[in-house]
Amino acid sequence: MSKKSNVKQFTDVLEKLDFSKMYEGDFFLTWEKSQDEIEAVFTVADALRHLRENNVSTKIFDSGLGISLFRDNSTRTRFSFASACNLLGLEVQDLDEGKSQIAHGETVRETANMISFMADAIGIRDDMYIGKGNAYMHQVVDAVTAGHRDGVLEQKPTLVNLQCDIDHPTQCMADTLHIIHEFGGIENLKGKKVAMTWAYSPSYGKPLSVPQGVIGLMTRFGMDVTLAYPEGYEVMDEVVEVAKKNAETYGGKFEITNSMADAFKDADIVYPKSWAPFKAMEERTELYGNGDMEGIKALEKRLLAQNAEHKDWTCTEELMKTTKDGKALYLHCLPADITGVSCEAGEVEASVFDRYRDPLYKEASFKPYIIAAMIFLAKVKDPVAMLKKLEKNAKERRAE
Amino acid sequence: MSKKSNVKQFTDVLEKLDFSKMYEGDFFLTWEKSQDEIEAVFTVADALRHLRENNVSTKIFDSGLGISLFRDNSTRTRFSFASACNLLGLEVQDLDEGKSQIAHGETVRETANMISFMADAIGIRDDMYIGKGNAYMHQVVDAVTAGHRDGVLEQKPTLVNLQCDIDHPTQCMADTLHIIHEFGGIENLKGKKVAMTWAYSPSYGKPLSVPQGVIGLMTRFGMDVTLAYPEGYEVMDEVVEVAKKNAETYGGKFEITNSMADAFKDADIVYPKSWAPFKAMEERTELYGNGDMEGIKALEKRLLAQNAEHKDWTCTEELMKTTKDGKALYLHCLPADITGVSCEAGEVEASVFDRYRDPLYKEASFKPYIIAAMIFLAKVKDPVAMLKKLEKNAKERRAE
Amino acid sequence: MSKKSNVKQFTDVLEKLDFSKMYEGDFFLTWEKSQDEIEAVFTVADALRHLRENNVSTKIFDSGLGISLFRDNSTRTRFSFASACNLLGLEVQDLDEGKSQIAHGETVRETANMISFMADAIGIRDDMYIGKGNAYMHQVVDAVTAGHRDGVLEQKPTLVNLQCDIDHPTQCMADTLHIIHEFGGIENLKGKKVAMTWAYSPSYGKPLSVPQGVIGLMTRFGMDVTLAYPEGYEVMDEVVEVAKKNAETYGGKFEITNSMADAFKDADIVYPKSWAPFKAMEERTELYGNGDMEGIKALEKRLLAQNAEHKDWTCTEELMKTTKDGKALYLHCLPADITGVSCEAGEVEASVFDRYRDPLYKEASFKPYIIAAMIFLAKVKDPVAMLKKLEKNAKERRAE
Repeated sequence: MSKKSNVKQFTDVLEKLDFSKMYEGDFFLTWEKSQDEIEAVFTVADALRHLRENNVSTKIFDSGLGISLFRDNSTRTRFSFASACNLLGLEVQDLDEGKSQIAHGETVRETANMISFMADAIGIRDDMYIGKGNAYMHQVVDAVTAGHRDGVLEQKPTLVNLQCDIDHPTQCMADTLHIIHEFGGIENLKGKKVAMTWAYSPSYGKPLSVPQGVIGLMTRFGMDVTLAYPEGYEVMDEVVEVAKKNAETYGGKFEITNSMADAFKDADIVYPKSWAPFKAMEERTELYGNGDMEGIKALEKRLLAQNAEHKDWTCTEELMKTTKDGKALYLHCLPADITGVSCEAGEVEASVFDRYRDPLYKEASFKPYIIAAMIFLAKVKDPVAMLKKLEKNAKERRAE
Repeated sequence: MSKKSNVKQFTDVLEKLDFSKMYEGDFFLTWEKSQDEIEAVFTVADALRHLRENNVSTKIFDSGLGISLFRDNSTRTRFSFASACNLLGLEVQDLDEGKSQIAHGETVRETANMISFMADAIGIRDDMYIGKGNAYMHQVVDAVTAGHRDGVLEQKPTLVNLQCDIDHPTQCMADTLHIIHEFGGIENLKGKKVAMTWAYSPSYGKPLSVPQGVIGLMTRFGMDVTLAYPEGYEVMDEVVEVAKKNAETYGGKFEITNSMADAFKDADIVYPKSWAPFKAMEERTELYGNGDMEGIKALEKRLLAQNAEHKDWTCTEELMKTTKDGKALYLHCLPADITGVSCEAGEVEASVFDRYRDPLYKEASFKPYIIAAMIFLAKVKDPVAMLKKLEKNAKERRAE
Repeated sequence: MSKKSNVKQFTDVLEKLDFSKMYEGDFFLTWEKSQDEIEAVFTVADALRHLRENNVSTKIFDSGLGISLFRDNSTRTRFSFASACNLLGLEVQDLDEGKSQIAHGETVRETANMISFMADAIGIRDDMYIGKGNAYMHQVVDAVTAGHRDGVLEQKPTLVNLQCDIDHPTQCMADTLHIIHEFGGIENLKGKKVAMTWAYSPSYGKPLSVPQGVIGLMTRFGMDVTLAYPEGYEVMDEVVEVAKKNAETYGGKFEITNSMADAFKDADIVYPKSWAPFKAMEERTELYGNGDMEGIKALEKRLLAQNAEHKDWTCTEELMKTTKDGKALYLHCLPADITGVSCEAGEVEASVFDRYRDPLYKEASFKPYIIAAMIFLAKVKDPVAMLKKLEKNAKERRAE
């Protein structure tokens, strides 16, 4: 490539931010991070991408492992994490619970140490059961922190939350970085209206982490965030509180409505996506805990019936016309339930989805860089100096 | 190692060839490539092997992923692709459809982009259904080409066809490179007689890609290629046309016979291997399409019975004696059905197979280098300069 | 890190040892290695760890594969092998037999070659059937040795026995290196009493390789090794003979007792762990060979009943008090069956296990380095020079 990199545009921003506490830290929930820390992640993600686009290697590890631990299958998350690790020089090892001895009753503490002797990063996705996923991540971090303190581990691997029962930070930060790029800068988000709305899906039990993550994060930039859902599809109270407080603190708005039309009206950004009611997910978690399979089946049936009452909650061309200049930016974490394509009736009309296909793919493309930035900030003592050093060394990623 | 590398022997050949169109390209079918391009793959494969044998690193990637996507299990293909990627510096990530969301009805286009953000190569094996495998590979390439054009992907990964319904280019090029080495040069292939013949196997539905790939490729070097099979075991018409045209263009011969003995008579090279009739595979594809499991079972029964009528189609010592000086080079893509070893009656007598064990393993050993050469030629703008640079840098593969 | 490495402390030791025969060799059983060779593995393991702790890269491979082949699932062993390979620069490829064509009746010889074209190391765990695991490893080594000799493979991968039916060398050497560190040097092991004792477990058919490996290895250092088990839980005769001979040769003691109390009395080190009777494992192997599933079930039932007669064989606080100063070092290969934690009644009381948690995790932390040392000694012609070179080059493992 003939392009020349210019990492200064990013290090200049970083030099004004305080993110010193991220060193040797972990990433659980966006609202546990300061504004400077959130902006540091965006900036490092952009810097890593910029270097890669200019064929500059960003490998900061000569060897080392990145451990992925997923409770369910996930092509995209797996590839995002693997891409991020590879970009930094870590080799991915999957801890598939089906394959592992965790299933045999081992303690989390022991396994966490046993897999971490040479691990610099651990990515966990555990979004299935309310009250479990985030708690599990903390158990893992506590275990490896103690292991490092007690001389068992030569390094403490950094935890990246790849989706829990509460938040989906890598997704929502990728979504937001996409918006930042589309609107030409984080400073341009102020006053923009975001509609995070429920949408109909023929499937059952979709996680709450995306809507929760979105209202917990996007309320931080002075935006006007509306959460819309049919009555009964409430999300976690504590995240609603976070969103309210953010709106106050950062000079934005946060509203809840039961009308998709109200949410879409004049919106700059729309994010129509299905999820399950929080109360139902709590109930499911308890039923699974009791091994009550009959109860699970009954719940599933009830939830599908409940969903079916709201087939009109779908992102149509008509609704899109009511958004700002009829041109709101359509977001989705993918894969979407597309009416007439992946299902009979779903979250979005095919023509809307088709028109936004490129932006949607770009939105997804930020995720590996967000993950890499989280690891970078936890593992590099002086990120500004390191970015400059990488640019100066200018090791080619692909030999030319 | 005390040996000194001499990559000039390969770059001298490459300098006379025009393979400029391979840059940023893909590898679907051998007959879509020019003679110079085919020879460039052989030459780069030999050059990479020569460098590795002399302990010179051929890593052209500092980071990056090689994605493997197999519709069925395959130890050898998986290891060949992994070896090729590792040799060039790419880390392999398997996209196991069992694990992935492809199975959940996602579009090929979306998944292809989602896994390719940091992918430099994609290897696909999809040989099960007629009319599907090669078409699927084109869908993937179209998707990532559009993704790269539209700014979603920073690079377009190169596609390597690891076996489709039509051709098996990495296998047949490894077979041919083996022949080239055994006969002391590509120029010595002229006039050699190749017998690509059907052979009995107790199993059902073996793919057609090997015989098709062989007649589509080996007819290019002035060889006298005979395709032999019992009536009813016809291969795809369009590949037969390719073979005929090749023979005309390159001054060789292509014949079809229903006699194994005729094919073996005076052959320099024999390739006895089972396959299923093309028409039957078409029928099977349709039955699967209709979910007609009863039909599948009936077809399988019919095909096994049909196979059993031709148990005399087996590579015996007696037949081998009728080949050129009784010493034809015996080829197989492995694993073979060996009479009295892996089955009661199969493709080849144990004593014949045993005598050719070493050459067969060598034949297989070319495949990782063929795959690596295909990736190298698609990813390196000036392969001649790069080979010289690798030799000059002389980075050790294994520290000494 | 501000610490400075000093690899001379290790190379000084290595310079006095003769381990020249390990080059291009394999690691099957500890008692097939000389005293110098065993000490070389400990020393190189310590040296590699020392370099890593001082952030010095120990990558001796620029590319190359490490193949793992497990007959059963194993998180810890898989991660240990992956960590060791990664530390040296090899990329791990798992040969999962479920995925591979081995299951389809291929010969070991063929598969071993097909996966080894670019393999520098092969780690095998095959501990299930008596008379099979170690034999299988030899078949693989014979195959790749022939493949290398005959020009099929450019290098002979080195075999690391990750657990067989006879020995568990990487585990027992990690255990011993842990003891060496705890007691301040290999010279301090002389006269120390080791109690390798059977302990009750509610599960069935635990492998014999750990007790066998321990008595086969720990009798080499002038230690006083006692093997204790209830009548009927005998281990392999040939390993008992090894232990006896070692005790004679190296000036230690080896005794067998049927009393756990006798073994624990005044012990410096205790290793209470369940295993199945050797005779029963022989019987099971035969039953599996005959496909006698009814017989297997009956055997399992009988063995569980037999185990249950010995619930008093458990490592209690009371027993621990009878050890040297009440402070014997408690060892376990993990995971342990902990009474009241992972089972109702098991190998060890929870309070004992808890007190030794950190040392147990440290014990496990040596395994990746032991494996890496075995590969290093087989792949590096002059290990002393290489360690010095790595220190001198001082390539950072993690960029600072």
